[in-house]
Amino acid sequence: MPNSAYLLYSITEVEPNGYYFSQFKSMDPICMFGTFDAPIALIHRMEVERAKQEGRFSKVLDLKLYQERAEKELGAPTLSNAIFLAAKDCGFTNFTIPHDFPAQLFSDLTQLGIKLEIAKAPLFPQRAIKSPQEIEQCRTGAAISEAGFARVKQILQQSSISADDSLIYEGQTLTCEFLRKEIRVACTMAGGGQNSPIAASGPQAADCHCIGFGPVKAHEMIVVDIFPRDDASYMYGDLSRTFVKGTPSDKMRDIYDTVYQAHQAALACFGPGKPLGAVDKAARAVLEQRGYPTRLREDGLWEGCYCGIGHGVGLEVHEFPFIRETDETMEVGQVITIEPGLYIPEVGGCRIEDTIVITKEGYEFINTPNYDWIIE
Amino acid sequence: MPNSAYLLYSITEVEPNGYYFSQFKSMDPICMFGTFDAPIALIHRMEVERAKQEGRFSKVLDLKLYQERAEKELGAPTLSNAIFLAAKDCGFTNFTIPHDFPAQLFSDLTQLGIKLEIAKAPLFPQRAIKSPQEIEQCRTGAAISEAGFARVKQILQQSSISADDSLIYEGQTLTCEFLRKEIRVACTMAGGGQNSPIAASGPQAADCHCIGFGPVKAHEMIVVDIFPRDDASYMYGDLSRTFVKGTPSDKMRDIYDTVYQAHQAALACFGPGKPLGAVDKAARAVLEQRGYPTRLREDGLWEGCYCGIGHGVGLEVHEFPFIRETDETMEVGQVITIEPGLYIPEVGGCRIEDTIVITKEGYEFINTPNYDWIIE
Repeated sequence: MPNSAYLLYSITEVEPNGYYFSQFKSMDPICMFGTFDAPIALIHRMEVERAKQEGRFSKVLDLKLYQERAEKELGAPTLSNAIFLAAKDCGFTNFTIPHDFPAQLFSDLTQLGIKLEIAKAPLFPQRAIKSPQEIEQCRTGAAISEAGFARVKQILQQSSISADDSLIYEGQTLTCEFLRKEIRVACTMAGGGQNSPIAASGPQAADCHCIGFGPVKAHEMIVVDIFPRDDASYMYGDLSRTFVKGTPSDKMRDIYDTVYQAHQAALACFGPGKPLGAVDKAARAVLEQRGYPTRLREDGLWEGCYCGIGHGVGLEVHEFPFIRETDETMEVGQVITIEPGLYIPEVGGCRIEDTIVITKEGYEFINTPNYDWIIE
Repeated sequence: MPNSAYLLYSITEVEPNGYYFSQFKSMDPICMFGTFDAPIALIHRMEVERAKQEGRFSKVLDLKLYQERAEKELGAPTLSNAIFLAAKDCGFTNFTIPHDFPAQLFSDLTQLGIKLEIAKAPLFPQRAIKSPQEIEQCRTGAAISEAGFARVKQILQQSSISADDSLIYEGQTLTCEFLRKEIRVACTMAGGGQNSPIAASGPQAADCHCIGFGPVKAHEMIVVDIFPRDDASYMYGDLSRTFVKGTPSDKMRDIYDTVYQAHQAALACFGPGKPLGAVDKAARAVLEQRGYPTRLREDGLWEGCYCGIGHGVGLEVHEFPFIRETDETMEVGQVITIEPGLYIPEVGGCRIEDTIVITKEGYEFINTPNYDWIIE
């Protein structure tokens, strides 16, 4: 059984367990320890007041004062010595730490006699079960993503198709870079941050993580994946859609319909107590039956659905639980994406991603699904 | 002497050493190892092609294939087993790792017989010495920050002062939240990401990391700190200014002038071979001589300049070298902020921050300094 006291050292602005533990936004690494119900901060002087006001700490300790004591009592004002003294003052000698706890501190604190047990990931399994408030925050994340999609659709609708199949928006050749910038602006205006959304046009989108470069072409599939973080709650939204401006080829229509059918087959597998592995199986079965197996081609490129079918979303874009071959079952309150896709090097990519929450009755959408994909 | 081979495991989108080593942008943790001149990626199948095209890897290995081998040869398809096999294949058994290398991997790989030496921070000291190309990237970061300042000034100029000293912009009460959102939009449009800029008005800004909440008031100091990351290079800009819309009090004028004098005194200390500690000393001397010592008050609040006087800036907003009591000397190519400030609980905050680069001749500004602070 893990210790009931935790020790974390991280930049909570980018490290989700630290933020979950503290509810405090820091852009420098901070030390946090204690039980989940009474977290304690050991923090730079200039963050002490803000930590008291904005964090959920039961106690906020001034790191500088502990470093001064460490110099006197232990001979050096090191971070590990300061943590050792602060932990002792608060009655702790054993901690559970996350798997990504910094190795140097791990080594130094162990030498000082503090017992550190590395948690089997995830550190806080309860993060996967969202409270009603957290589900609302997930809805906010999804709404911020949808603000990005609204802007993408508006731009594609207002674009015209030139003689060489380029798109022209407000007199300029429409590029993936422009779309991504406009997505980020729309997300920012809607209250969220989005570093590098995907807006990839044509064959480049056969690489499912290619963010997209160069001109957007008519009659090609455009994969758009928008996963912003709500500024207030740090909760992510994550949605993807595939569009064609103009006229898709028959092959593209077949790919889109196949992905849509896989998506529907996957959705039918969601519900409390149901196995996560069945979602993966159902989606992949449709893709294969329709003639799109996943395979490593002789030219060394992957084809088919070589990405995951879905994942939990919350304080991380990709978090527990993951949809994969597994015996784990779904629980009420889990927020999960469902995103089958097909990636064919010569043609491009196609992905349809929604986010749902498992409910007592089955599941509910976190976003407002809409599958229109051809933009005239 | 450290090993010449490194091992990293990190999300390069948020972890600067991994990005510096790979020049590859990933939003999931990836494993990278080898010498600095020939880095190798061990990476998820769906990132392999992108890593080959976008990263500076000499070799890109498919993690899945190594996990399959690990299952057969070592009995379990774990990450550590896969890394062990991949390292062996490439002829490595010893690595230098960063201080924040994940504890679990550190422990597992050590047990497998891989020798891991934790680097004395920083892992890549050469990061502090910017190449001409990196200096240009720093200038881009600063220019993105300046786009944010231009927007702040425009909004303050176009605001009117209401009877209760609120500011009215486009018919609405101007808030810190609105200013911060507009800063982020301006930075995004200029090619950068900026998560949580500071725009704090009045006494709240006496907490130097308070990002600002609620209405912006006339005749109060507004601290604005904008530190965006250039999307293309991941290089940060970092600049701060303090504004008053309306008429500052005599106290505010004295505070601003004191900070400006401290800033000038600090600047005079920059140059190759000069001690970093002298900058700290010179700035603090001015603040104290002008009657603003740094002290912990009886009410438990800090007053004066309880923040640092400056720091390196690059792939991190705050990175080596730091301006503090130290014997280290400056080197050509270091990019450093200079940001003395005064924080007085009843009055508010005042900070003036520029970024400079150390040159053979002395130093050059990275930004275009302008010290107008009173906006009519």
